[in-house]
Amino acid sequence: MKRGFARGEYAARLARAQAAMDRAGLGAILLTTEPEIRYFTGYLTRFWESPSRPWFLVVPLSGAPVAVIPSIGAALMAQTWISDIRTWPAPHPEDDGVSLLTETLREIGGPVGVPSGPESHVRMPLADFDRVKRDSGLEWRGDAGIVAALRAVKSEAEIDKVAHICGLAGRAFDRVHEIAAPGVPLSQVFRDFQRLLLEEGADWVPYLAGGAGPEGYSDVISPASELPLAAGDVLMLDTGAVWDGYFCDYDRNFAIGHATEAQNRAHHRLIEATEAGFDAARAGARASDVWRAMADIVGGGEQAGRLGHGLGMQLTEGLSLTAGDQTVLEPGMVITLEPGVDLAPGRIMVHEENIVITDGAPRRLSPFAGRDIAVI
Amino acid sequence: MKRGFARGEYAARLARAQAAMDRAGLGAILLTTEPEIRYFTGYLTRFWESPSRPWFLVVPLSGAPVAVIPSIGAALMAQTWISDIRTWPAPHPEDDGVSLLTETLREIGGPVGVPSGPESHVRMPLADFDRVKRDSGLEWRGDAGIVAALRAVKSEAEIDKVAHICGLAGRAFDRVHEIAAPGVPLSQVFRDFQRLLLEEGADWVPYLAGGAGPEGYSDVISPASELPLAAGDVLMLDTGAVWDGYFCDYDRNFAIGHATEAQNRAHHRLIEATEAGFDAARAGARASDVWRAMADIVGGGEQAGRLGHGLGMQLTEGLSLTAGDQTVLEPGMVITLEPGVDLAPGRIMVHEENIVITDGAPRRLSPFAGRDIAVI
Repeated sequence: MKRGFARGEYAARLARAQAAMDRAGLGAILLTTEPEIRYFTGYLTRFWESPSRPWFLVVPLSGAPVAVIPSIGAALMAQTWISDIRTWPAPHPEDDGVSLLTETLREIGGPVGVPSGPESHVRMPLADFDRVKRDSGLEWRGDAGIVAALRAVKSEAEIDKVAHICGLAGRAFDRVHEIAAPGVPLSQVFRDFQRLLLEEGADWVPYLAGGAGPEGYSDVISPASELPLAAGDVLMLDTGAVWDGYFCDYDRNFAIGHATEAQNRAHHRLIEATEAGFDAARAGARASDVWRAMADIVGGGEQAGRLGHGLGMQLTEGLSLTAGDQTVLEPGMVITLEPGVDLAPGRIMVHEENIVITDGAPRRLSPFAGRDIAVI
Repeated sequence: MKRGFARGEYAARLARAQAAMDRAGLGAILLTTEPEIRYFTGYLTRFWESPSRPWFLVVPLSGAPVAVIPSIGAALMAQTWISDIRTWPAPHPEDDGVSLLTETLREIGGPVGVPSGPESHVRMPLADFDRVKRDSGLEWRGDAGIVAALRAVKSEAEIDKVAHICGLAGRAFDRVHEIAAPGVPLSQVFRDFQRLLLEEGADWVPYLAGGAGPEGYSDVISPASELPLAAGDVLMLDTGAVWDGYFCDYDRNFAIGHATEAQNRAHHRLIEATEAGFDAARAGARASDVWRAMADIVGGGEQAGRLGHGLGMQLTEGLSLTAGDQTVLEPGMVITLEPGVDLAPGRIMVHEENIVITDGAPRRLSPFAGRDIAVI
């Protein structure tokens, strides 16, 4: 499978952004985070793990984006379609891109929109952000949700990447019997499962969570304990692995040794809820409709929480399958279906699959699990 | 090796923070990012990979920190030493913790300090941050660098964790001959090296960069290409692997098949510079002194850039070994020594090791490489 995107993909993203900027009356959008900058440039590096340097991309109302970045990134940025690359020798605490960014913004003109809505943050020191705002002399606003709205609807090329990593992860899940058995510490299972994902072709594994216990687990975000698996446990592994910058995000439950009646009943209900969510996930429906289809089966009412979310360049992004999210589904939206049930007070089982909304029935991106819980 | 920290570690961190807050006239510090919140709580999860929910910790001038977090994190936070845990059902875009945080801050009182200096950012939507500031009715400032200064000096228990992951990575580097050979694509080497790190005991591998070529590589931040290794190449692998939330960050260079004269000369110079940096890295010296000791050997003058940096809960954190960084070294500071040389226009070789500053000679945390470049 080919890495990267055709040049036309970026031109289309930019054109859509600029049309929306025109409607919103913005002269520029300032981006500071990894997925936002990558969305418009294709700039892909794990170096964002280092907090030491801010990175900026200015999307103008017309013309090509301007990268204002640390010089350490110049060679890699020059391999993207971006040609206007302005650098400074970061880190330089006295002026860490502040004057170069200010000058660039003044040249391009405002009003400057900054993503300010749900899930956003400004990845630069607050003191420097305040300096840029003040020194620019421009008007500053939110970005009117433009960048988030664009990213929510994926192109075919983006969907292919999510499908690819979902397929790789599916092969790793099929091999969990190689690494999980009574007596193996959960921490060892976590290390080995990441190894399996890499062996199957994942570029890296930014996210792995899970849990184990006879009555499920206490949450879906904990790191591994050193406790050994025991016969009768349910083991859950939930991964966000990445291929070419795109995530899968789904899980599998496994019964260790044998499945109890309660575990199997819970799993059946999870699969039933997932199928109900799948059937409800039609273009024109609302996120809350898909939530309700699943919540009606797993129970919990309005307290059932988030039963899925958008997915793509980040592990979670965009809409939430909650009672309150009124986002209208559109073809090209990639989402997870993630129902959960209680097995005991404070102990849960959660199932998750990945799909993409189309003009008709959604398309499965992850290889949907069978009705019975897998026994290892 | 034991995971986590003794309760006294957190009590000591808090006491130091509160003493500094008293001097700075702060009533509270508001923290929003993973390492900052983990530093005071021990809250360790890979769930930060999801941008969907903000997380808050309020460190008061007296008394214990208060966690204001999404309910999905309550079970895990309850396993830390923090007892005042206030939750809301996030994501809830209309009020994503804003009113709960505001109420908490009003109860604790200001002035509220927010980390605003180099490397910091505020991890919450800008619009929500503005609401909290306004609704709190409190005075807001920077945190006077308090949190960064505390984190810069590591405890023995923290240093042990960095030493542990450095040791694990060293064993993985010793096995690179198993995975690298002429004809193997660099992307495969990257996947396999992550696997080796996991096999040797790393919890996960947040960072891997590298490059290959007969005259070195163009930068140290690029993802892997699909190009196969060739005899005569230098292969560099630079990893930030993690054990119990602490990073190593060092690299190794390997000559594929045979080492050229130029490669060996460059490697000798890098090792010589590293040793000079090591000798200069004494308590009381400045970061710029260590930089100069290395820059004098690798050349490049003031343009030589950053030749190392702090390290700990993040891949890079704190001081920079640059011409301009006047930070005075203290015992307990963990740093990297990272000199680089040019092999050809636009092609470099970079070497990196990890050390900790002590009262006497620094202590090596990574197993220092030999003078000759390793041949595979």
